[in-house]
Amino acid sequence: MAKLKGNLLYGQSGGPTSVINASAYGVIQEAKENPNIEEVIFMQHGIQGALNEDLIFLKDISEEDVEALKHTPGSAFGSVRHKLSDFREDDTNYLRLLYIFKKYNIRYFLYNGGNDSMDTCSKIADYMNQVDYECYIIGVPKTIDNDLPFTDHTPGYGSAAKFIANTMMETSYDMLAYPNGKVTIVEIMGRHAGWLTASAAIANVSGFGPDLIYLPESPFSIDKFKKEVSEIYKMKRQCLVAVSEGIQNEEGIFISSSSGLKDAFGHFQLGGVASKLATTVSADLGLPSRSVEFGSTQRAASHIQSLTDVNEAIQCGKEAVKAAVAKKTALMVVMERVSQEPYTIEYKLHSLNACANTEKKMPKTMINKNGNGVTKEFLDYVLPLIQGENTPLFSNGIQQFSKIRK
Amino acid sequence: MAKLKGNLLYGQSGGPTSVINASAYGVIQEAKENPNIEEVIFMQHGIQGALNEDLIFLKDISEEDVEALKHTPGSAFGSVRHKLSDFREDDTNYLRLLYIFKKYNIRYFLYNGGNDSMDTCSKIADYMNQVDYECYIIGVPKTIDNDLPFTDHTPGYGSAAKFIANTMMETSYDMLAYPNGKVTIVEIMGRHAGWLTASAAIANVSGFGPDLIYLPESPFSIDKFKKEVSEIYKMKRQCLVAVSEGIQNEEGIFISSSSGLKDAFGHFQLGGVASKLATTVSADLGLPSRSVEFGSTQRAASHIQSLTDVNEAIQCGKEAVKAAVAKKTALMVVMERVSQEPYTIEYKLHSLNACANTEKKMPKTMINKNGNGVTKEFLDYVLPLIQGENTPLFSNGIQQFSKIRK
Repeated sequence: MAKLKGNLLYGQSGGPTSVINASAYGVIQEAKENPNIEEVIFMQHGIQGALNEDLIFLKDISEEDVEALKHTPGSAFGSVRHKLSDFREDDTNYLRLLYIFKKYNIRYFLYNGGNDSMDTCSKIADYMNQVDYECYIIGVPKTIDNDLPFTDHTPGYGSAAKFIANTMMETSYDMLAYPNGKVTIVEIMGRHAGWLTASAAIANVSGFGPDLIYLPESPFSIDKFKKEVSEIYKMKRQCLVAVSEGIQNEEGIFISSSSGLKDAFGHFQLGGVASKLATTVSADLGLPSRSVEFGSTQRAASHIQSLTDVNEAIQCGKEAVKAAVAKKTALMVVMERVSQEPYTIEYKLHSLNACANTEKKMPKTMINKNGNGVTKEFLDYVLPLIQGENTPLFSNGIQQFSKIRK
Repeated sequence: MAKLKGNLLYGQSGGPTSVINASAYGVIQEAKENPNIEEVIFMQHGIQGALNEDLIFLKDISEEDVEALKHTPGSAFGSVRHKLSDFREDDTNYLRLLYIFKKYNIRYFLYNGGNDSMDTCSKIADYMNQVDYECYIIGVPKTIDNDLPFTDHTPGYGSAAKFIANTMMETSYDMLAYPNGKVTIVEIMGRHAGWLTASAAIANVSGFGPDLIYLPESPFSIDKFKKEVSEIYKMKRQCLVAVSEGIQNEEGIFISSSSGLKDAFGHFQLGGVASKLATTVSADLGLPSRSVEFGSTQRAASHIQSLTDVNEAIQCGKEAVKAAVAKKTALMVVMERVSQEPYTIEYKLHSLNACANTEKKMPKTMINKNGNGVTKEFLDYVLPLIQGENTPLFSNGIQQFSKIRK
């Protein structure tokens, strides 16, 4: 196979995770070792950086900033949510990309993201193929939601799950302080998939976890919820609930959708689902309640990363470079669990097109029959993903992050 | 001085912190070494445990559970909010306490808590003195709010500040991912004192911190807030705000107080101040906004404790035992900063009565002139308190907590 010398273009897209930059680190390490790759170039804010010629060169990044990528949350190179049109309908952006690819001799293109980002990546691969520009295009998976198909799990999920499990334990222990506790309702991210909320169940392994877990995969009934909460409170004088932001009723309507709330200034307000349920608990059941939202810390908590997750994120970056240099294209790196004990992952590739715009939800076998908790199958699945700690880079009491962007 | 042999009674009270159990660990270690103390007895749920004779004996606690106290948040022995009456008006509870003290030969009584708990402790000391029951009573300080007087700072504050500083950095880095960011408003605890919210400023040392900080010590004006946010957003296309739950307007009315909000079920809802301000930003300034509440994780995040704070909490426990055995009474352990470089603390004692029911607020010299940030004096004050990491006890990916209570 004839060698193709050229530059590698890498970008990040979609919601940040605490380990997407670890994948960038993997890309850099593998690319530096490969003689076919002359320079690694980074788009700032994903594909928008390519269109705007807003680029950063590896040679301009300090060794210290490269190393810190393993410990830096968010998107060190900037992210974007930008949906490319179909090039058959409007090829303006594609012509611009082709110009940039040619100008910088881009022969390897890696895009790090979730479902939507794989759509972008897939479209670019189709276009470059159609115009016969030789460029190998690989997707690097990433999402705390864990909803990408054809991969056992996604980088980012393990660290978010580790944060959630540990913070649920802390929340539970905190709640147990008082003899008469509250109904505490914790809202967890994950969009339409329950993976992230389900990880709250890990806290139960320690004995300090949620009593009830509500996932988007099971239709949510307010009446059933009230009955379940009140039964547990009667027994324990407290109740800890984990609820997904994406729970829906039988008709598929989000419980968190606009509720007609108005604030003191007369403006409409979109209520969080946990806050809404806490209000219901207080008003209808007469029980003390409070709501907690883990918020963006779920995806950004670099101070409690899973070492397994960080290492896999790095490896996904490396595998993407290897695949591109081996002249594979229009594929996404996926992980296959080939053994449960010891937990072993093999890295494979899967059609980008098939990965794009599809959401993988939790299978029924991982959710309990009552639709308010998980099964052992889920715990067996998730536990290996949170193992090990990637000790943060602390200096003067605070973490050290990469400072790369202009 | 004649020796007094007897038992030591210890209890926890008020809101949990991530290091109150480290103080219990210090009490245990010091008490075990002192021949005057025959047994350490713990009240479950503070003074309520004494009244109900709901006690735990040190001999019944495993060595492993004692060790884990250094890493366990919440209240390992249970907390309570119980205001004792004035014994001159109603001595029912005091007679009961005296009976329990005599029954268990309690000669040393330590109470671990904040302002209200020191009130309880002070009243018991007064009563035991009046009825001439020989018992030495010492308060062990604790509160994330850092609002106890006569002490440089309180155990619990440093760890909460460390969590807040690091999580603000992560929130900031997460927000910077997109080219057009949001106005992100983070709500932080602290009741009527700004210490905790001010600790968000530590994140600025790294370059990833809040643009604006609003504290209860400076009157809050919605118009000034909107002007300041909009100026920053114009410059940076994003704005990170830290706001105390306790901010008040010129008239001393809490911004977070009931606002007439009604939810979908027709119930009144108390809105968080951050969520309220985010709504204002979107509606009045037309800027994208979101709110984040750090919630109970601020006081419970044992996974990111300040080692300085943990060590000081242990030492406060030890000092309380030493003071009691030295026949000192009606005092609270306080910390005096005798040197800034190197940071050095001396442990002293101060009248319980003076410590009770008083809140220490931030001095004007630690708040900037615009009332939207802190001064170098505050950073110099707070930085030593977050130094060092108390590596969590992880096993199987999650923390190991003490399991003491029945």
